[in-house]
Amino acid sequence: MSGNTIGSLFAVTNFGESHGPAIGCVIDGCPPGLSLCEADIQTDLDRRRPGTSRHVTQRSELDTVAILSGVYEGKTTGTPICLLIKNTDQRSKDYGNILETFRPGHADYSYLHKYGRRDPRGGGRASARLTAPMVAAGAVAKKWLLEKYGTTFRGCMTQIGDITIPFESWEHVAGNPFFAPVADVSGLETYMDDLRKAGDSCGARIRVTASGVPVGLGEPLFDKLDADIAFAMMGINAVKGVEIGAGFASVTQRGSTHGDALSPDGFKSNSAGGVLGGISTGQDLEVSIAIKPTSSIITPRESIDTAGQPAVVVTKGRHDPCVGIRATPIAEAMLALVVMEHALRQRAQNADVQVNTPDIMRKRG
Amino acid sequence: MSGNTIGSLFAVTNFGESHGPAIGCVIDGCPPGLSLCEADIQTDLDRRRPGTSRHVTQRSELDTVAILSGVYEGKTTGTPICLLIKNTDQRSKDYGNILETFRPGHADYSYLHKYGRRDPRGGGRASARLTAPMVAAGAVAKKWLLEKYGTTFRGCMTQIGDITIPFESWEHVAGNPFFAPVADVSGLETYMDDLRKAGDSCGARIRVTASGVPVGLGEPLFDKLDADIAFAMMGINAVKGVEIGAGFASVTQRGSTHGDALSPDGFKSNSAGGVLGGISTGQDLEVSIAIKPTSSIITPRESIDTAGQPAVVVTKGRHDPCVGIRATPIAEAMLALVVMEHALRQRAQNADVQVNTPDIMRKRG
Amino acid sequence: MSGNTIGSLFAVTNFGESHGPAIGCVIDGCPPGLSLCEADIQTDLDRRRPGTSRHVTQRSELDTVAILSGVYEGKTTGTPICLLIKNTDQRSKDYGNILETFRPGHADYSYLHKYGRRDPRGGGRASARLTAPMVAAGAVAKKWLLEKYGTTFRGCMTQIGDITIPFESWEHVAGNPFFAPVADVSGLETYMDDLRKAGDSCGARIRVTASGVPVGLGEPLFDKLDADIAFAMMGINAVKGVEIGAGFASVTQRGSTHGDALSPDGFKSNSAGGVLGGISTGQDLEVSIAIKPTSSIITPRESIDTAGQPAVVVTKGRHDPCVGIRATPIAEAMLALVVMEHALRQRAQNADVQVNTPDIMRKRG
Amino acid sequence: MSGNTIGSLFAVTNFGESHGPAIGCVIDGCPPGLSLCEADIQTDLDRRRPGTSRHVTQRSELDTVAILSGVYEGKTTGTPICLLIKNTDQRSKDYGNILETFRPGHADYSYLHKYGRRDPRGGGRASARLTAPMVAAGAVAKKWLLEKYGTTFRGCMTQIGDITIPFESWEHVAGNPFFAPVADVSGLETYMDDLRKAGDSCGARIRVTASGVPVGLGEPLFDKLDADIAFAMMGINAVKGVEIGAGFASVTQRGSTHGDALSPDGFKSNSAGGVLGGISTGQDLEVSIAIKPTSSIITPRESIDTAGQPAVVVTKGRHDPCVGIRATPIAEAMLALVVMEHALRQRAQNADVQVNTPDIMRKRG
Repeated sequence: MSGNTIGSLFAVTNFGESHGPAIGCVIDGCPPGLSLCEADIQTDLDRRRPGTSRHVTQRSELDTVAILSGVYEGKTTGTPICLLIKNTDQRSKDYGNILETFRPGHADYSYLHKYGRRDPRGGGRASARLTAPMVAAGAVAKKWLLEKYGTTFRGCMTQIGDITIPFESWEHVAGNPFFAPVADVSGLETYMDDLRKAGDSCGARIRVTASGVPVGLGEPLFDKLDADIAFAMMGINAVKGVEIGAGFASVTQRGSTHGDALSPDGFKSNSAGGVLGGISTGQDLEVSIAIKPTSSIITPRESIDTAGQPAVVVTKGRHDPCVGIRATPIAEAMLALVVMEHALRQRAQNADVQVNTPDIMRKRG
Repeated sequence: MSGNTIGSLFAVTNFGESHGPAIGCVIDGCPPGLSLCEADIQTDLDRRRPGTSRHVTQRSELDTVAILSGVYEGKTTGTPICLLIKNTDQRSKDYGNILETFRPGHADYSYLHKYGRRDPRGGGRASARLTAPMVAAGAVAKKWLLEKYGTTFRGCMTQIGDITIPFESWEHVAGNPFFAPVADVSGLETYMDDLRKAGDSCGARIRVTASGVPVGLGEPLFDKLDADIAFAMMGINAVKGVEIGAGFASVTQRGSTHGDALSPDGFKSNSAGGVLGGISTGQDLEVSIAIKPTSSIITPRESIDTAGQPAVVVTKGRHDPCVGIRATPIAEAMLALVVMEHALRQRAQNADVQVNTPDIMRKRG
Repeated sequence: MSGNTIGSLFAVTNFGESHGPAIGCVIDGCPPGLSLCEADIQTDLDRRRPGTSRHVTQRSELDTVAILSGVYEGKTTGTPICLLIKNTDQRSKDYGNILETFRPGHADYSYLHKYGRRDPRGGGRASARLTAPMVAAGAVAKKWLLEKYGTTFRGCMTQIGDITIPFESWEHVAGNPFFAPVADVSGLETYMDDLRKAGDSCGARIRVTASGVPVGLGEPLFDKLDADIAFAMMGINAVKGVEIGAGFASVTQRGSTHGDALSPDGFKSNSAGGVLGGISTGQDLEVSIAIKPTSSIITPRESIDTAGQPAVVVTKGRHDPCVGIRATPIAEAMLALVVMEHALRQRAQNADVQVNTPDIMRKRG
Repeated sequence: MSGNTIGSLFAVTNFGESHGPAIGCVIDGCPPGLSLCEADIQTDLDRRRPGTSRHVTQRSELDTVAILSGVYEGKTTGTPICLLIKNTDQRSKDYGNILETFRPGHADYSYLHKYGRRDPRGGGRASARLTAPMVAAGAVAKKWLLEKYGTTFRGCMTQIGDITIPFESWEHVAGNPFFAPVADVSGLETYMDDLRKAGDSCGARIRVTASGVPVGLGEPLFDKLDADIAFAMMGINAVKGVEIGAGFASVTQRGSTHGDALSPDGFKSNSAGGVLGGISTGQDLEVSIAIKPTSSIITPRESIDTAGQPAVVVTKGRHDPCVGIRATPIAEAMLALVVMEHALRQRAQNADVQVNTPDIMRKRG
């Protein structure tokens, strides 16, 4: 209710601040019997962590995760799994006049008016650092879904600032710091180097998909699978837009082309993005998100101080010139959490359902 | 949990099917003492109801609402408000071979695989008709928010199929069947007449805003105001994309331009769309949604039957050639429900907060 | 959240007031495919309804239930089931000076201070009449649990005022107006006749059980099965105490006798009342509740009016001299709702669990 | 949903196992601006912790709490408060044949059948050790309620085994290891010494109260204040019965005596225990709970092993001969959590309520 838990049956409660002693999460509802150790989670955390290339923040955090509960003799017990990540490289002094001024594009103004106070160190609770526990929780969901249904999650960058990135192959994604599905990222590197020298930042567009999703996930009216995906994605720091399937392109489509035709061999297209009437069809979930440019830039910005007087803000510290770069594993994790939640809901209500109709997607949960 | 309730403190539970005896909702958590009668609700229902122009479905439903509980001597009592709308013009025989085939773009396939059965009459639970109770509930939220905070909600169509609609004035919106903010809609009428004659349908883009929103609404990590807006909007039938503020345009923006500068007189722009860090700033909430073309068209479509064999689907019956046309009051209602929920949450946790900083938006809740 | 919904996966939202046009509920989450018609529900409603003997209120309500949604061709569809019961015999004029005074033992004082207003007609929302929709919802849960797991629910009166009622046989319960498990209720009738003539009322103790409960229901720390049972029972109008298994008698027991010994043939006693560590063992759930004497009595009572001045209250109208008499079907229904909720939760998280250990109760879900 | 979170607006998520590396909780929804440090919490933890007298378990745990998040410069920020308590004195080897047998009165059998596996070390998740984080969370609630409304919480033992303990004064409670409200506890000490020598255990009855409770807390139908109290109390390890106000004594009361008369100076009695119609009246909340005898005793017990064969169980290790002894601070904490939750709910919905009627209890929230 106070906004730090996502999910009901696979409920993840996130805690911590950027410069406090630790961040982490508690996962409640994980099915028992899943083999789980820190290494299962660390892989995705490493994909997200800072300091791995010159194109992201140089803050040095190993983001080492510890499992505090819920696992006994290498398997989940069904009770809460607490994951803890200690903060190790806080340099609060870097943050200049943050406490007295409102940084444009940041949550300073809204937090102060909501709570009457705020932890200003590194953005406090509003820091993108709090996505680390989400990636950790998502790794648990991914593992269970893979073992149970064969579901897999992938993401890549499809645009960075003005540069549209063509899709060549999923294989290239892990080979460059941009999560770009292309072999040659030299153009992207030059673009980002120039931007960084200019003291500015840019936005990005990320695509994230799930394959092998059971048919039937999602609820009919409000907790539609696509609505929950939109909720999860828009909740990622800096996201300003979410599309499912054809997304905004569907505005100019005709009904005769948008509606995906069916054949005995499956759907013939995927404008729906894997969801019809809020319920998964078994096709790939296709999601695209827009991420705004980083608000922390060294270019001076016009603002006011907490007394309401004009002030100029220059944000020093160590920041990502494009927060979208590290967003891919985050978006994958959030998508996995949504699918996990609905997989559990589905069997709660509909475990007894028998459908005689051929499942053209062969992926019923 | 089973997806038919939205909100926690202002919880709206929706029930009914398109061709059952009645549809409706139960609102739990409405503050007591609000003056409320059916006429307060009927106005918005009339804006959404079918049969009001040749550009929407010709199903004739008056959508007359009755208040069954929660109001005593003209004021809300704080206990559940049940709103009932009887269905009066069901013609189930119109719907042809829906039961045996899966209509492309419809929820037939996903519902059947989820539940093992479905009510096929008029789309059953998946019908857009179920947005009527949401509009009714939204009207209650709108009234309370207006009286308490002066918050107002407005929406308009900004694109229909290939035609972009410029913004002239809010005053025009009520003067045409498209909710278009322009004086002359003859071009839109011709476009829709041609489309209808062609037996096809098109998508639309809708803008919805809220003004006079208290600062401080929304939660920090998951139940962000923009995340809940995305959830509510993506949950509307046929919506495939949601933007807040600059939306997808933020991908190509620079940090130096996207971040809204502040001055003693307020924010100087609104790329944020009224939300920073998931919490309202007091600026107008700015939301844009993409609505796919109506899936029910008379153009024959390739599909399969429930035995998995190829079939051709022709959807007769009375359908909107562009479901986006009637979406404006629905989107307003959903936005109102989200703001209402967060207004109550905010005072639960933060009723004692005193901020000495000048509120440049002068709209603190 | 505002207290009119019970359950999450099998969520029942209750609405209405004693003297409004109708009362009812919406059940969200019922598994699809359950055969259901009004008659399945009416049976339990008839057990609870007023006017069936001289020992209960003479208000004449048939409590006829109508299914408004969620059932198609005689089977549940998995979407919300709205049950409506119209009020037909409201006589608000009977209620005297209720509006200006606070009746001792009634919710008048607390409601007014909570909401600033209240619907005084027949107790409004605080009326025990609102248990009728709970009985209706419970009937749906009972039917599903019986068909799925063979679970059955029974209740009886074990004490009325000063008279302890011995347990003779479940068979007698339906044969008398007290739900007493004895063949001869003449003593009870005389006792109640005398009490009624004296213009007073008395309390009662009710026992309610469930047999054939699957092992493994309930959550480990907070949503324990017994905690949820206590919540459901204490929420019934006029209940002041709840016991599970040995209940308060366990205070004087020794550990060597309280702990139920196990043998290859099952547990050898049931001090636990069917729950260990908050989780069902498969033994019968055994619950006992205390119901206070009816607060509406014609004996004059000392009180104050809404101006804070002394006043004398005489409650006319048609009231039960012992609200406990009609409580048995209500308590059964509430127990069924709790078991239903946990049955669905259990398969959400633990559907894959395989236990090699012999189930001595042979009732695993 | 999976039962490890209590509360919605003041939500406490509990994690950990008896013999894991740590236990703790996350509090989400605490109002900002509350002064809070570890010492504020430690006081109550010290009242609950083991090893403080010969009458409780000799396990030596300091139960030192650390605040990991949600507090900045000594005040709560409104974001999640993570409280961590490291386990330091685990001696798993003490626990004998727990893994292969089911201890009578313990959760072994139900956990194994629910999850298919269990952490047997010290009871794992079912250990009463998990009440420590609840006491910690309760201390935060108590502090806020005291500062905001002047609400105070007190508890004492009223019966241990066969010995009824008269109420002399609250002042004695802190002066003896039994939380007994009497000056001379020599009789209790002898009783417990004898019991311990006999290798057996006994039950207890605990009274817990809240004074200075705002009027108007609690919801009308399900989330009644007394229902939530019953839920919280029955959820404490080993509790088998809960009473509010007159409790089971109300069965033999008459309506003319049970209903608390009102006068301009307040209520003249408190049979209601501070709750009418599920909503607080402003009178003291009066709760009584029954705690069963400790199941871990060295007396041999008849049982079965996991293969279903007969077995004898002797529970060694360090156990409380009466778990009720340390239950008082736990019950206080749980009551505080319930009141806290409802205090926040109340202002969410009813912050604008003005009541002209004199508040005879002068405690409106």
